[in-house]
Amino acid sequence: MGTTIAGGVCAARGFSAAGGHCGVRKNTDRKDLALIVSSAPCSAAAMFTTNRVKAAPVQLGMELAAAWRGGGTARAIVCNSGNANACTGAAGLAAARKMAAAAAAALGVDAAEVLPASTGVIGVPLPIGAVESGVGPLAASLREDGSDSALDAIMTTDTRRKSSAIEFALAGKTVRIGAVAKGAGMIRPSLATMLCFVTTDAAIAPAPLEAALRVAVAKSFNMVTVDGDTSTNDTVAVLANGLAGNPRIEAPAGADWEAFSAALETVCASLARQIAADGEGATKLVECRVTGALDEAAAAVLAKSVVSSNLVKAALFGSDANWGRVLCAMGYSGAVFDPAAVKLRFESRSGSVLLYSLGSPLDFSEDEAKKVLSEKEIAIVAELGDGSGSATAWGCDLTYDYVKINGDYRS
Amino acid sequence: MGTTIAGGVCAARGFSAAGGHCGVRKNTDRKDLALIVSSAPCSAAAMFTTNRVKAAPVQLGMELAAAWRGGGTARAIVCNSGNANACTGAAGLAAARKMAAAAAAALGVDAAEVLPASTGVIGVPLPIGAVESGVGPLAASLREDGSDSALDAIMTTDTRRKSSAIEFALAGKTVRIGAVAKGAGMIRPSLATMLCFVTTDAAIAPAPLEAALRVAVAKSFNMVTVDGDTSTNDTVAVLANGLAGNPRIEAPAGADWEAFSAALETVCASLARQIAADGEGATKLVECRVTGALDEAAAAVLAKSVVSSNLVKAALFGSDANWGRVLCAMGYSGAVFDPAAVKLRFESRSGSVLLYSLGSPLDFSEDEAKKVLSEKEIAIVAELGDGSGSATAWGCDLTYDYVKINGDYRS
Repeated sequence: MGTTIAGGVCAARGFSAAGGHCGVRKNTDRKDLALIVSSAPCSAAAMFTTNRVKAAPVQLGMELAAAWRGGGTARAIVCNSGNANACTGAAGLAAARKMAAAAAAALGVDAAEVLPASTGVIGVPLPIGAVESGVGPLAASLREDGSDSALDAIMTTDTRRKSSAIEFALAGKTVRIGAVAKGAGMIRPSLATMLCFVTTDAAIAPAPLEAALRVAVAKSFNMVTVDGDTSTNDTVAVLANGLAGNPRIEAPAGADWEAFSAALETVCASLARQIAADGEGATKLVECRVTGALDEAAAAVLAKSVVSSNLVKAALFGSDANWGRVLCAMGYSGAVFDPAAVKLRFESRSGSVLLYSLGSPLDFSEDEAKKVLSEKEIAIVAELGDGSGSATAWGCDLTYDYVKINGDYRS
Repeated sequence: MGTTIAGGVCAARGFSAAGGHCGVRKNTDRKDLALIVSSAPCSAAAMFTTNRVKAAPVQLGMELAAAWRGGGTARAIVCNSGNANACTGAAGLAAARKMAAAAAAALGVDAAEVLPASTGVIGVPLPIGAVESGVGPLAASLREDGSDSALDAIMTTDTRRKSSAIEFALAGKTVRIGAVAKGAGMIRPSLATMLCFVTTDAAIAPAPLEAALRVAVAKSFNMVTVDGDTSTNDTVAVLANGLAGNPRIEAPAGADWEAFSAALETVCASLARQIAADGEGATKLVECRVTGALDEAAAAVLAKSVVSSNLVKAALFGSDANWGRVLCAMGYSGAVFDPAAVKLRFESRSGSVLLYSLGSPLDFSEDEAKKVLSEKEIAIVAELGDGSGSATAWGCDLTYDYVKINGDYRS
């Protein structure tokens, strides 16, 4: 639903962004600080990592999100790359507060209206002085076409920019939702993104905004895995400034909320696929579609287990139709299902190969399977006979480059 | 406790073994069929994969194990490699029954006394004819020094033989326990072994035997991970023929049972470490020791999460002291702990480096850390401040060769 548009995180009215180098990274060619700003106060909501070890900006962000629930407004997001500000103790928390305060001062807003975020290496003190001196000039360079510039400043091992935006009609008004995301490693399905910042000009109260975000994340970022590691810094935030002029959505129900939710899910699902396709070292995007499960929860557990299996991922890297590993990964997922009622196939734009049906392996053409698995986008399709639950999860193959990238990340 | 002895799965009195080539594997240089036989009827117990998708021999084994609980005896184990006989439908289950029956006929025992087991590729029909014609000659070649021969026939991607045996005193008698194991991939901490066969000449009833096995497995095979994939074929079986002549242990309590349990755990822990060290593509054995956790369960969850993390494993491959990933993996383990009360260090025979203490990162020598992490056996030590629970888990690093081995396993 909706129409894809350009503009990324600045696609919605009233949002501007910028990215620059402030000195958190030693390499002066790499941007390391981003600002995303709304010209008007925003309703806001955010979700954070489920990791018990939470980065300092996540701890601060959770305080802000609580205030947003009570009607507090947000105006901006400030984010650095090159340092996660995680496992950095009391000094790290103080640095996160200083980061938000410096951005607020540069923008002339309240510190409580600025969400800080960080991504990069864990356990190294954040050079807060660099952020504090860099954020002023950055605020002066905000542009309405600054989405890519901001995006470049939050990327780490990402090899591609990840952004998405759509517009759709809401009660006769044109509403836009735009977003940028970063994430390539330390990705798994419990808020499986490092960072995603969403902006919209929809008029919507905090409670229905948060409800829509939870639904969208459940079907998008929570269905992506790269390596099964849940980061200390995961943050998905949405800012809604109301400039579209639609009748404000006040509750998480009704046609307007449904339309907004669906549009938000579309944007998040696009980013989730982009994250999976850009998984560290990945050569292939893998989608697992489960249908006929007992219920949606079982389907989701099964689909995520398949795309999480190192053995499945390595086999797909080698274009090896080792489908037994798929059934094996379903088997240890913890979900209840009847293996004897499963049909399993591999699909891509090169074709479809049925491998296993109702308890028995099938004869299939190895050449044909190789051709199907040699594509850049592969689907693993499991049709179960247990009920009507369905779910889709995304992941990628496991490659030499994943090991290489993560064998010397800090160097 | 006990003294390490030679002899592997034939170390205990009355056991013989043999391995040979029957034709399940195309390569005639690779053994693919093993027999392990007791000269006297045995009490027996077994544990199997928790995967919902269970190989045919596992389904049959679970029936046998139920009979053993009721006092039924066992005499032999027959095991093939090269084919898992999993996801093979009704024909697969019939093949597993034929395999046990053929071995029983060759040995002159009852089919219900023979445990079948299989390991290898999933989803390919077992060439049962090859097994049936091969098992007779194999039975004729049983030897009391046949442990390595049998072991060679059950190995798949294993690069090293894994066996262990000890003897210890029990009520004035010398009792022996010996075992062989195979496993290198599809290993994770829910009965984390492909196959392990244990034999003993202790006199022990089925109930205390099974109880001892459960305790030993919990602290050994269930604390090993290679890749987080639980196989369809995992089987740990123990046969006890009573030839040591000790007063039969009738209940899972008392000094004799404690001594037997401890000895069994020693044998299993040795094999667990051997499996981790021989993880597919591994260059390093990784041990994670957690102390001061809320309780033993929390400590086990934390230790297993650390050795399971792809990011930790890849960093160790690169000898990169990226300790933040360790804390991160503890954080998403699901266990309750206080990150601000953690001390974290890397240790090996080259030294010990303290990295993080009580909420804050420490300055440490990168050169010294590199030296510590460049050893073949590395310990990650986490001292918590939450209680007195402790646990140890074993794993290995994640390497290019893991990807290579699993990218084209079937070719």
